[in-house]
Amino acid sequence: MQMHPKLQELKTRLAEVNDLNEANAVLSWDQMTFMPPGGAEARGRQIATLERLSHEKFTDPEIGKLLDELQPVVPELAPDSPDVALIRVTTHDYQKAVKVPPVFTAELSEHTSKTYSAWTKARAEKNFKLVAPLLEKTLDLSRQLANFYPGYQHIADPLIDDLDEGMTVAVIRPLFQKLRTELTPLIQKITSQAAPDDSCLRREFPEEEQLKFGLEVARKMGYDFNRGRQDKSPHPFTTSFSIGDVRITTRVKTNFLAEALFSTIHESGHALYEQGINPDFDGLPLASGTSMSVHESQSRLWENLVGRSRTFWQYFYPQLQAIFPSQLRDVQSEDFYRAINKVERSLIRTDADEVTYNLHVMIRFDLELEMLEGKLPVKDLPEAWNNRYFKDLGVIPTDDSVGVLQDMHWYSGTIGGYFQSYTLGNILSAQFFDAAIRAYPSIPSEIAAGTFDHLHNWLREHIYKYGREYRAAEIITGATGRPLELESYLKYLHSKYSELYQL
Amino acid sequence: MQMHPKLQELKTRLAEVNDLNEANAVLSWDQMTFMPPGGAEARGRQIATLERLSHEKFTDPEIGKLLDELQPVVPELAPDSPDVALIRVTTHDYQKAVKVPPVFTAELSEHTSKTYSAWTKARAEKNFKLVAPLLEKTLDLSRQLANFYPGYQHIADPLIDDLDEGMTVAVIRPLFQKLRTELTPLIQKITSQAAPDDSCLRREFPEEEQLKFGLEVARKMGYDFNRGRQDKSPHPFTTSFSIGDVRITTRVKTNFLAEALFSTIHESGHALYEQGINPDFDGLPLASGTSMSVHESQSRLWENLVGRSRTFWQYFYPQLQAIFPSQLRDVQSEDFYRAINKVERSLIRTDADEVTYNLHVMIRFDLELEMLEGKLPVKDLPEAWNNRYFKDLGVIPTDDSVGVLQDMHWYSGTIGGYFQSYTLGNILSAQFFDAAIRAYPSIPSEIAAGTFDHLHNWLREHIYKYGREYRAAEIITGATGRPLELESYLKYLHSKYSELYQL
Repeated sequence: MQMHPKLQELKTRLAEVNDLNEANAVLSWDQMTFMPPGGAEARGRQIATLERLSHEKFTDPEIGKLLDELQPVVPELAPDSPDVALIRVTTHDYQKAVKVPPVFTAELSEHTSKTYSAWTKARAEKNFKLVAPLLEKTLDLSRQLANFYPGYQHIADPLIDDLDEGMTVAVIRPLFQKLRTELTPLIQKITSQAAPDDSCLRREFPEEEQLKFGLEVARKMGYDFNRGRQDKSPHPFTTSFSIGDVRITTRVKTNFLAEALFSTIHESGHALYEQGINPDFDGLPLASGTSMSVHESQSRLWENLVGRSRTFWQYFYPQLQAIFPSQLRDVQSEDFYRAINKVERSLIRTDADEVTYNLHVMIRFDLELEMLEGKLPVKDLPEAWNNRYFKDLGVIPTDDSVGVLQDMHWYSGTIGGYFQSYTLGNILSAQFFDAAIRAYPSIPSEIAAGTFDHLHNWLREHIYKYGREYRAAEIITGATGRPLELESYLKYLHSKYSELYQL
Repeated sequence: MQMHPKLQELKTRLAEVNDLNEANAVLSWDQMTFMPPGGAEARGRQIATLERLSHEKFTDPEIGKLLDELQPVVPELAPDSPDVALIRVTTHDYQKAVKVPPVFTAELSEHTSKTYSAWTKARAEKNFKLVAPLLEKTLDLSRQLANFYPGYQHIADPLIDDLDEGMTVAVIRPLFQKLRTELTPLIQKITSQAAPDDSCLRREFPEEEQLKFGLEVARKMGYDFNRGRQDKSPHPFTTSFSIGDVRITTRVKTNFLAEALFSTIHESGHALYEQGINPDFDGLPLASGTSMSVHESQSRLWENLVGRSRTFWQYFYPQLQAIFPSQLRDVQSEDFYRAINKVERSLIRTDADEVTYNLHVMIRFDLELEMLEGKLPVKDLPEAWNNRYFKDLGVIPTDDSVGVLQDMHWYSGTIGGYFQSYTLGNILSAQFFDAAIRAYPSIPSEIAAGTFDHLHNWLREHIYKYGREYRAAEIITGATGRPLELESYLKYLHSKYSELYQL
């Protein structure tokens, strides 16, 4: 069947936007990995120009006109045609994009880059006040941004929708409430036990061997290095320049083995998702993960449910010992397993174990909502932060750099829309993993043999390949037979940690 | 003084074009250094889109209108104002760009990428015939391209002008004729002597140490690594993403020490030029080398007149020996010096010594002209090539892969416009070096002490800083007091090689 000429024209225009976005992803990747300091200023200009051109071209009224003209064509297409999904996704993105005036986008972008600079200084000087006035404006701009999408139930909903289409505060709040109710006593019980000794991870592990081992694990997981690579950056991330070029970065600490190792596994989980998208979607808006939460579920599934499991290390621990004989010769597999699953109440989200991690996220989520609702003034944020840390985790930041200034998110974007997806990802990781094991009960024993084919294939066939062809809710129900729910995740945490800590 | 609003508008538009070009340079750099094979297809698309957008924006009639409106403003500006140069350079580039219809550019671009693929196959199979029909079309397109600029004296002139504004066949031909007349007996005399033994360069030199030494040399030369870096690629090159980010690449052969070493010095010469441009020009068309020949003169000056000099190795040879003690302990400094200056008649341009190198270039230049003039049909090119190699260098290619297929130039662009600049660069390298030494007679003894400040400063003040503010001919006369001439270069070759070979 010949393609409808309007559809062809739409695809041509979208391909141009996509090329600009992918080019910009290369510029950002280089900025984080290889760029010398002297390149920073020009790189800022280059990225801003490509962003502006991409936005201009995507919000061109001609695209709106094409979409209008294509709506009557949709019923003529096969209902499961990717073109139907393409028209739906593009219409959604277009309608969101045109609601925000370009001058606002420019103001927000300029403001966040100024705020980011101020934050690096404020964090170094451990002084929230240095960035507070800017953060007040960020809050104001975040509210303005939400208000470009009237009709929301909660003011955070439009911000959440940007990364998680259809997800709302009304769904998240009760879910998080239930999770907190379950986690609090679990963490209480765990931390009343003696903490495992993780000193075996804190010996000297040369960088080169760490990287080599991480790459070997990624390869076994199914990461195709003909279509990807790993480099180093201050903060690990995954980026895609096309389905044929999906890259990750990692960060190595020679005195802490878990750093590079789990960051590589985590980012490889993201990369498997991007590499597994239907190649027919390459260059179109369908070629990315369906939502931030589902994306995060894939990194967490591999990092935690696979990478921190006893079965995984049945296969890999002897190899790790062979690479680091002097450091690990005297460390039993079981002690290593306990070390990488040490639970403790701590100050820093990114260093947190998988159980307490969610408390860190939920604190941020609640504070964001209070700020957006106008109940928490920015000036009172550090106090509210510290109070919540004491209440939820029993720890008090010694200063703002390990408190309210620790994460870049609020200081490099809007307030709201991001953090919840980390915990939603954790919840989903177990729900997907359970479903995969129901389909292939041999998965755990395969993991114990260092084989991931069934797991990887199941994920690809039920999640990866669709890209944005289906919405997150549809993907979840399609893959697991149920909507988003806590059951699998709670069962996973309770059973793993009851056994580990003999609760 | 307030900037003229039309000038401001022109600069804004040029900055956008520049951002697109610099972004594209990042994409190309990544393609040659780090990109995994799977990224190739999408990268081609991305680069083509950015090129098209840049061309569209630069040839926008609004730019032509602004330039027209600015012509009457020029007399009001100070004659040495960079804005005068900016208007001149932009007018030149604009008038060249708008003469070529976009459909032609697209056809040429598609054709050359197809030809490049065919060439890689033809070269691997050592069979010129596989690419001959495509090269015939390249010749036709090259002639068409030249004919978009009527009024030339020689059909190659417009192609040469693209990289070397104002340079013509009428200037080059007699210069090359004279050079060949001088080189032929010199090479005859040299090669009638016993060739120096260069086996000391062909031992096993581990990559890491080679790279480390090369970087140390580059740093001493004045390459600022806060504004640059070195990576590896199959073919070494220099690229600039801004004056603050100028990168080089190198290629390492662990069994041939001269490969990475001299490629790093050569590319660092290019990089010093780009890094030394007046920072006020950043982001504008003035921020690049004034011509391909002058650019090449800088790489050659550092590679040959500095890097292959006895004085240079007075300082660096003990350091090299310290890095490679087992490989070089038994090699005297003088033997090393003779090895890196070994002259021999050979088949491959890129492996040629500095004396015979020019013969390789002149063969290509003459054959190009004959093809463009319609005197040499493409099908007869291999025979003409082999005849000329036998006549000029006394060697005959054993097959086309080491003959007419050895260089990518004709197979990845037009026929004509490029090769001559290599030899022009050689000639200029000596002319500039002489002038620098006239200004600072201490330069040779400084080089012998591993210090390059006077040389580097002189080059920056007389060449680098101007970027395209002055034309090549003006730069040459301004820096050396004379127009382009052979004298210094011939004197350099005669005196260096007479002494070396005791002629």
